[in-house]
Amino acid sequence: MATSLFDAGPFARLLGDAPLQRLLSDSAEIRAMMLVEAALATAQADQGVIPQEAADAINRAAREAEIDPASLAEATGRDGVSVPGFVAAFRGQIGDPALAAHLHHGATSQDILDTALSLRLRQILGLLDLRIEALLATARNQARSHKTTLMAARTRGQVAMPTTLGAKIAQWAAPFLDHRGALTHMRPQIEVAHLHGAAGTSAALGPVGPVRARFASELGLHARDIAGHSDRAPIVALGHWLARVTSSCAKMGRDILLMSQSELQEVTAGPGGASSTMPHKSNPVLAEVLVALGHYARGQAACLAAAQDHAHERDGAAWMLEWMVLPGLLRASGAALLLSETALGSLRACPDAMAATLDALKGLTQAECATFALSAHMPRPEAQDLVKTACQDAVAAGTSLQEALSRLSPLPLDWAAILDPNAATGDASDQVEAFVARTAGMSGQPN
Amino acid sequence: MATSLFDAGPFARLLGDAPLQRLLSDSAEIRAMMLVEAALATAQADQGVIPQEAADAINRAAREAEIDPASLAEATGRDGVSVPGFVAAFRGQIGDPALAAHLHHGATSQDILDTALSLRLRQILGLLDLRIEALLATARNQARSHKTTLMAARTRGQVAMPTTLGAKIAQWAAPFLDHRGALTHMRPQIEVAHLHGAAGTSAALGPVGPVRARFASELGLHARDIAGHSDRAPIVALGHWLARVTSSCAKMGRDILLMSQSELQEVTAGPGGASSTMPHKSNPVLAEVLVALGHYARGQAACLAAAQDHAHERDGAAWMLEWMVLPGLLRASGAALLLSETALGSLRACPDAMAATLDALKGLTQAECATFALSAHMPRPEAQDLVKTACQDAVAAGTSLQEALSRLSPLPLDWAAILDPNAATGDASDQVEAFVARTAGMSGQPN
Amino acid sequence: MATSLFDAGPFARLLGDAPLQRLLSDSAEIRAMMLVEAALATAQADQGVIPQEAADAINRAAREAEIDPASLAEATGRDGVSVPGFVAAFRGQIGDPALAAHLHHGATSQDILDTALSLRLRQILGLLDLRIEALLATARNQARSHKTTLMAARTRGQVAMPTTLGAKIAQWAAPFLDHRGALTHMRPQIEVAHLHGAAGTSAALGPVGPVRARFASELGLHARDIAGHSDRAPIVALGHWLARVTSSCAKMGRDILLMSQSELQEVTAGPGGASSTMPHKSNPVLAEVLVALGHYARGQAACLAAAQDHAHERDGAAWMLEWMVLPGLLRASGAALLLSETALGSLRACPDAMAATLDALKGLTQAECATFALSAHMPRPEAQDLVKTACQDAVAAGTSLQEALSRLSPLPLDWAAILDPNAATGDASDQVEAFVARTAGMSGQPN
Amino acid sequence: MATSLFDAGPFARLLGDAPLQRLLSDSAEIRAMMLVEAALATAQADQGVIPQEAADAINRAAREAEIDPASLAEATGRDGVSVPGFVAAFRGQIGDPALAAHLHHGATSQDILDTALSLRLRQILGLLDLRIEALLATARNQARSHKTTLMAARTRGQVAMPTTLGAKIAQWAAPFLDHRGALTHMRPQIEVAHLHGAAGTSAALGPVGPVRARFASELGLHARDIAGHSDRAPIVALGHWLARVTSSCAKMGRDILLMSQSELQEVTAGPGGASSTMPHKSNPVLAEVLVALGHYARGQAACLAAAQDHAHERDGAAWMLEWMVLPGLLRASGAALLLSETALGSLRACPDAMAATLDALKGLTQAECATFALSAHMPRPEAQDLVKTACQDAVAAGTSLQEALSRLSPLPLDWAAILDPNAATGDASDQVEAFVARTAGMSGQPN
Repeated sequence: MATSLFDAGPFARLLGDAPLQRLLSDSAEIRAMMLVEAALATAQADQGVIPQEAADAINRAAREAEIDPASLAEATGRDGVSVPGFVAAFRGQIGDPALAAHLHHGATSQDILDTALSLRLRQILGLLDLRIEALLATARNQARSHKTTLMAARTRGQVAMPTTLGAKIAQWAAPFLDHRGALTHMRPQIEVAHLHGAAGTSAALGPVGPVRARFASELGLHARDIAGHSDRAPIVALGHWLARVTSSCAKMGRDILLMSQSELQEVTAGPGGASSTMPHKSNPVLAEVLVALGHYARGQAACLAAAQDHAHERDGAAWMLEWMVLPGLLRASGAALLLSETALGSLRACPDAMAATLDALKGLTQAECATFALSAHMPRPEAQDLVKTACQDAVAAGTSLQEALSRLSPLPLDWAAILDPNAATGDASDQVEAFVARTAGMSGQPN
Repeated sequence: MATSLFDAGPFARLLGDAPLQRLLSDSAEIRAMMLVEAALATAQADQGVIPQEAADAINRAAREAEIDPASLAEATGRDGVSVPGFVAAFRGQIGDPALAAHLHHGATSQDILDTALSLRLRQILGLLDLRIEALLATARNQARSHKTTLMAARTRGQVAMPTTLGAKIAQWAAPFLDHRGALTHMRPQIEVAHLHGAAGTSAALGPVGPVRARFASELGLHARDIAGHSDRAPIVALGHWLARVTSSCAKMGRDILLMSQSELQEVTAGPGGASSTMPHKSNPVLAEVLVALGHYARGQAACLAAAQDHAHERDGAAWMLEWMVLPGLLRASGAALLLSETALGSLRACPDAMAATLDALKGLTQAECATFALSAHMPRPEAQDLVKTACQDAVAAGTSLQEALSRLSPLPLDWAAILDPNAATGDASDQVEAFVARTAGMSGQPN
Repeated sequence: MATSLFDAGPFARLLGDAPLQRLLSDSAEIRAMMLVEAALATAQADQGVIPQEAADAINRAAREAEIDPASLAEATGRDGVSVPGFVAAFRGQIGDPALAAHLHHGATSQDILDTALSLRLRQILGLLDLRIEALLATARNQARSHKTTLMAARTRGQVAMPTTLGAKIAQWAAPFLDHRGALTHMRPQIEVAHLHGAAGTSAALGPVGPVRARFASELGLHARDIAGHSDRAPIVALGHWLARVTSSCAKMGRDILLMSQSELQEVTAGPGGASSTMPHKSNPVLAEVLVALGHYARGQAACLAAAQDHAHERDGAAWMLEWMVLPGLLRASGAALLLSETALGSLRACPDAMAATLDALKGLTQAECATFALSAHMPRPEAQDLVKTACQDAVAAGTSLQEALSRLSPLPLDWAAILDPNAATGDASDQVEAFVARTAGMSGQPN
Repeated sequence: MATSLFDAGPFARLLGDAPLQRLLSDSAEIRAMMLVEAALATAQADQGVIPQEAADAINRAAREAEIDPASLAEATGRDGVSVPGFVAAFRGQIGDPALAAHLHHGATSQDILDTALSLRLRQILGLLDLRIEALLATARNQARSHKTTLMAARTRGQVAMPTTLGAKIAQWAAPFLDHRGALTHMRPQIEVAHLHGAAGTSAALGPVGPVRARFASELGLHARDIAGHSDRAPIVALGHWLARVTSSCAKMGRDILLMSQSELQEVTAGPGGASSTMPHKSNPVLAEVLVALGHYARGQAACLAAAQDHAHERDGAAWMLEWMVLPGLLRASGAALLLSETALGSLRACPDAMAATLDALKGLTQAECATFALSAHMPRPEAQDLVKTACQDAVAAGTSLQEALSRLSPLPLDWAAILDPNAATGDASDQVEAFVARTAGMSGQPN
């Protein structure tokens, strides 16, 4: 246990994530803030707001300066936000005070911090998108491999009717196609260059239109002409999206957890840890972590949502809440995508165990097939009644539905064929094909 | 206090919402279920799965039958879901048992309930979209009216610099443009005709491709070829969107609440209730309700999100959670949109009070303007130091910044003009114009 | 679907709860408000603050008056709180205006509403306490009945070692003993007579000490000498407690749901609904509802907690949030206690299925017993190694651990006895006894 | 931004908390696990379950061994829990394998981890209790100092009537008396020595009664005879309590934030940071952080509550969720208590500004006093009407209520005395006295 389990030593293998750890570090934030100040200086020099010489000095310093995060603690303790201390420290590294005076010209802390976040989110969202693609590619392979692997569909905790593992995988993974669509729709609202000054009116920023446009293009971000300092809906929408993505991973984990039960042993995923005291147990570690991450991500997104209760032009408390919650939520989603790809890629099915589940119900799961077969020869209500009676007889006598039907039915139908579970999987294969078609060309390796 | 405040007698004026109340009633749900069964019958008759005569009888009954919601209590108590009891009751109303036997052919409870929900959500989302448009239209008018109404921007609880009420309104309302975009993106995933049968494999549904396509088009919904019974991300995304929309309304309420403080009295909105014991108080009722609805909607969306923890092909517990949470959340969003339109439409600004807030700071809020003016004549650091000294002197002496600058500055600048707050509102007017342009042609009255 | 599922017609059997419905109705609230005003008048007349004649008239009216909740809608729409409209309506029913003028003397809306809530919460908490007692009594009976009913303990989704159903029931129910203790500790902070006036200073209430004491004793509530209008921790603590109680019910539901899986069929609880399309399914309705209520109650308690963010001496928005959330949360807890008592009371165990679960693992779950037996004759590490090898052999060969041990062990131990699962249940029976002892004398029927 | 803001370099001054950081570190957890294993060995040797020599070796190693948290990553990645890897590493440090074999005898991972958590929670809760006491002591001093400092009570965002800052502080702090009571009630359920073995039946633990009793007493924890592995209500109750405590701190922060508004400037607390661009602003940093921590703690407690949805005898996913959430929640509460003590201790009131707020309403806030004075001479309704008219006249004419009453009243009353706000503070001083009495003898310095 450490303040964040994502950084705890013993969990480095399970939850470690070097790229996200790097992007969410204090020093990556400071680096991003320097890039933002540099882009501002470039844009302002371009419009004659500050001397080109100053912009050059600022850009040079942005490449070379090193600011120790801990050195900002005193100023941040006083200001509640790291920017004033950062600006002072950065000025010190520019050298010539006359040039350094042009740093941060007309900008406000939020311009810098929010834009620095946008910069890093652009990288992070790109990374998550790649991880989703890798997950989809793996799902594609596995769905295809198990296109006809017969297993029980389960509804409300009960074995319902046959389906295939391939269809199940397609249903697990299809939501990620929606998630990608939503991500594409959402990114322009997230990856924004904020430049609106102390009061959100861009006063003191000079000819703000061209400055903001250049500022944004320097950074590869979108500009926004109505100030968004106090509109936290985009960041909350990001949190919501992360929660949904992580929950879709967790749903996969939940199902794997259930299928891994000792009594079923239909699948294993990843390296199952042996219990410290029980050698026969193989703990479904990855599935558990996915379920835990789902709970966690939903809770964090809910916590983050209070950031929309943002007073006036800037609300220090609501804003700080974002800093407390977003990094852990990003880590959770990042880990969930990595681990679910691993789980899915290492999923080993046990077709015998899956078949045994269906066999144990002695044909009852295909009762509807019998009804349909009979309906071709008699009125439907009559067929339904006959099958219902057969089911009850089979259950009472402990025999199979096939036996009961052979005995009760007036018609010499081929009950073995009619009740073959492989014939009762409906459009399961079509769903696999539809999923394969929609993921055509996807590949990618998560990182 | 009643189980739902949205249905409490004393709150009928404040939270009442006839169209949503009707669409979320038990009887509207049953009506929608009948329409869904009828569309299924039509589609199946079309493909020869059931007799046309049966489809006709079912469609007739769907138009004429009345099923008392309370009559379903016993069966729902046994089944945990209302569909089996509903199907039995509906069969009874069709008359001829031979025809009635074709009702609900091959469908599962979730096909019916989820699709019936889609039907009503299509209407509800259409309604909410109109309410957003009405809110935008009202914001457009008010932003334009107050384009140059000077007021204080406030950051971190402190008066920062001048802005205009028009810019503030534009910033309040602009997020609703994003919300509409997100709604348009989201609706095809919400307004879905679900038809996948007991195991999500469409077994027993006959030639499910054409049946499902016809079923969807009969109902004006989208079809989905990979079963979505167990993917609750779309309904959770809806909840998330509702929370964000309501929170954007609440942000407006928060600001109005703060501006309505006795000590400020910069605005009033709606009919302020007089206190029972304090005649001088005018309670900002609408603003309070909006803030409360924001908290409520965020909480409900968070609660709903657990529905994504959905086991296997159907999870009775996770599914029931949706029924518990979604209606209240829809009511909250519906009410918030209505009330924020009312609040915005009835917003009365007090420009004198707004000006007084700025005046009380004796020009300090325009300190940055002084720095800029001086920077034209001396190095920026020098200008900054001079203004800083002037600010300190003004605060210490209790005089205005103009006086202090006149005294301290070596240059005979026109300090009154330089420090005129009207000249310090940056691009506030441009933001109003940008918002007006983006809402061109919007009108609409909420209902 | 209706705004509250707790009031939906089809769910009347499952979620209906006449006593709570009555106590949470609009008219019960108005009735409670009248009692509060009457007690205030009595206490004030007692101290000569108002004439005894006025107190008599107010008390008479409190017994006889009928105020239609809907008639308060207009005033509540204006005031945002129902009290001013209620006071006006109540005055109208007192008759003599000179006497009626003494109604609500010096009180503020919050005094009346919060105290009226306390009055009803006293009844509701009493009721919930009885329901917990009934649940404990039922658990006591069932734990005793199944004291030695052998079944598998499951950890991390895997069969671990043998336990008994009795111990499991004792572990389900023991937390309710803690919940009762917490309730007893909490009630004095909840069941409070609030009387502090418009500003929380009791100004205008006359000699507030004796008035408040009499007011509280009239109502059977606790007095509080430091104003608690703005301290919402007690109501949030109530919400937290309700969430924990409901979650303990849901934990029982979760386990029953898992044990009811088709593949296990170890228990049934309550009337299992048959699926509309699958005759062999018996849906675990009560267990599902319990799990859903757990999610719901946790979410509502989380939503309610924002009420602690309460500004100054009274925060209209935070206060209204309580009215939106608390009733549904109380209903959820009330229903969960009723349904879990029903589920537990109707729990039917299938000892054969339970034994089969253990048998399927062929003695592996008792590996630890073998290690202990061997440790008496050889160094522990050696014993551990031998058992480990035997386990691996048994798994590889598909034989039982007993066979493997008989073959591998150098000692002629009585492996059948050593591996008897009935001998491996540790202190399971002691836990049942401890629970029975702690619930001695409990009985009670829920209502 | 780092994964946890509580560990971010720039926030070390604001959120740093050396004692909690140490207690929540990986190494503190490992140290606690060693102490737990040592206590188990001691208790088992005492009962002859393992050799005394082994217990001695284990205890010696527990004092001396160093296990690098990172070295557990591989095993934890495989097992999903750190205990098996830890036991192996610890065994390696004991030396003699024959003695090391007795380590962890009969215990399960959860026994160790949960008990190790209990050990650290005992220290943490002791620390938080001291911080609450320090906060109460500071509140006591400040309440006493400001016993008669007149200020406006505000309800629903409006100035209501006079109160005193002392009463406000008493009302802020009184809830912490309740929180201490709840903590005392709760600690025995939290500070528990868990020892129930792999299946919660204590099988393989030997004579578990005496072993568990000795184990608990060695560690200074409470024993529990019904296994609590799967009852997570206590840990959720802890989370709930932490959220309420933090929210009570945040309520104080909320009020300070509002009183610190530029337009009011009634108080300052702590070192207000100057804005980077606006020299006249003094940002209320501590108050903001407190409000943010309130949001955060409520959100984390809500997230933690899902841990009660715990399947069977051990649920790996629900359990891991606790590890993800609890540390941050503890840090938030710890920081909130420290910062609110600092804020309260450094609270500087501006009585002039407070008086000005009341003066601006020209006596209207004392309208009720006028009514009472007149009621001594005329029927109450008549008095109410006269005062109401006077209020309206005063507002219309922009004069004071005193002037209006002097003009309108037929009686020559001493209106200046009657309307003196100092005479209208009711029992504000009594509330201060009550609070001072209840905190008698408290002192303490937070750490």
